[in-house]
Amino acid sequence: MKLRLRLSYLGTNYCGFQYQPNGISVQQRLNEAAERCFGVFCPVTGCGRTDAGVHARDYCCTLEIPDGGNKIPPENVPAAMNRVLPEDISVKTAAVAEESFHARYSAKYKEYQYLVLNEPCRDPFYYGRAYHIPKRLDTTVMDGCARRFVGEHDFAGFMAAGSEISDTVRKVMYFKVSADGGLVTFTVAADGFLYNMVRIMVGTLIDVSRGRIPPGSLADVINSRDRSRAGFTAPPEGLYLNKVVY
Amino acid sequence: MKLRLRLSYLGTNYCGFQYQPNGISVQQRLNEAAERCFGVFCPVTGCGRTDAGVHARDYCCTLEIPDGGNKIPPENVPAAMNRVLPEDISVKTAAVAEESFHARYSAKYKEYQYLVLNEPCRDPFYYGRAYHIPKRLDTTVMDGCARRFVGEHDFAGFMAAGSEISDTVRKVMYFKVSADGGLVTFTVAADGFLYNMVRIMVGTLIDVSRGRIPPGSLADVINSRDRSRAGFTAPPEGLYLNKVVY
Repeated sequence: MKLRLRLSYLGTNYCGFQYQPNGISVQQRLNEAAERCFGVFCPVTGCGRTDAGVHARDYCCTLEIPDGGNKIPPENVPAAMNRVLPEDISVKTAAVAEESFHARYSAKYKEYQYLVLNEPCRDPFYYGRAYHIPKRLDTTVMDGCARRFVGEHDFAGFMAAGSEISDTVRKVMYFKVSADGGLVTFTVAADGFLYNMVRIMVGTLIDVSRGRIPPGSLADVINSRDRSRAGFTAPPEGLYLNKVVY
Repeated sequence: MKLRLRLSYLGTNYCGFQYQPNGISVQQRLNEAAERCFGVFCPVTGCGRTDAGVHARDYCCTLEIPDGGNKIPPENVPAAMNRVLPEDISVKTAAVAEESFHARYSAKYKEYQYLVLNEPCRDPFYYGRAYHIPKRLDTTVMDGCARRFVGEHDFAGFMAAGSEISDTVRKVMYFKVSADGGLVTFTVAADGFLYNMVRIMVGTLIDVSRGRIPPGSLADVINSRDRSRAGFTAPPEGLYLNKVVY
């Protein structure tokens, strides 16, 4: 049986969603919890990797329970899994999925949010949960520039080195920047994201606000496909996978 | 010179504000940071104790810098202290205080907030920051009952055992209960609080919502001065010292 799980996790203590030999991943914790619940190894397939330290409010993955596994009604799976999962991972819902459903390839688009705490003083409650920038950012300028990313573009310049992906064209549905008190929120959706793409786009908008990249040059920066012309990579702790739409 | 500091801290890793021989307190961390900044031991006086695991959004304390201490302009003290403090404590502001000012005795009143995450499923982002109650609470009933606490009462029944305080009369200015999505917020202000008083008042309101204490009996429960008639002590992780008014 294939289950579709929705979960949220605080990424601080993990090397990312996906299994890695040299760190504790969310996937590993899910595998361990599922094996305790179902009595057998249950393969987990995620909707994508997330970087170390990146959080998820509404992540989607599948869990395949082999025929010999313990029978647990899907509606009881969240409580059963949460009893054995660490407190920084929570299974919100579980439902039977079509065999053809794939957590990654069936996704229409994903929405990420990036939080910047834009206040002179740091805040213990946002430590590890937002990127702290003491100096005032210009939300209006950043919001105006964010719209330049919308549409289908070759985002090769917004991909970290070391990625082996050859097709770097992605479609951005929307990209907004808003402020609420000292908290600046970047909200972006796309049909797919390259490695570090959100963090480089956010870093580029921050660099525009700081005057390091002229607002008018953003279209050129995108078209150049040159990583060195884009901005810095914003740190992982401000990034949240917000939702996955199928 | 006497400085008045406003700070916020995440209480999860501390035995409370006040120094204790068998745990790490916020006060100890402030003393250590101040000694590194000013080169001498600087006495710290807080506006009150907070329990282990309790947080503060706007705590007030004084820092007395002996004459031989390094000269740091007050406006630079937050940045200097934050450089050496752990990330879960932040000094927000520092200003010269009158010699007669006392962080505890000069306070007119304090406001606390208590957060309950009232959703079926736990949330990693509120772990250690709100008390999780899966079953639905009745905010309207609790808000109505909260008003019974307002005014001057003998709160002897709302004090943890082991306290040596003899005057248990306190004046509650306001007490409101509101809900925003799955988050229930209890907001209470008083001229002083007995040991565990907020947590017992919140536990009592939750017990009213659960039908364990009849709403109509609350005045009797208060007047009885009997700890056994009040509700349970809500756990510390949901409690925030919100502000101190002088």
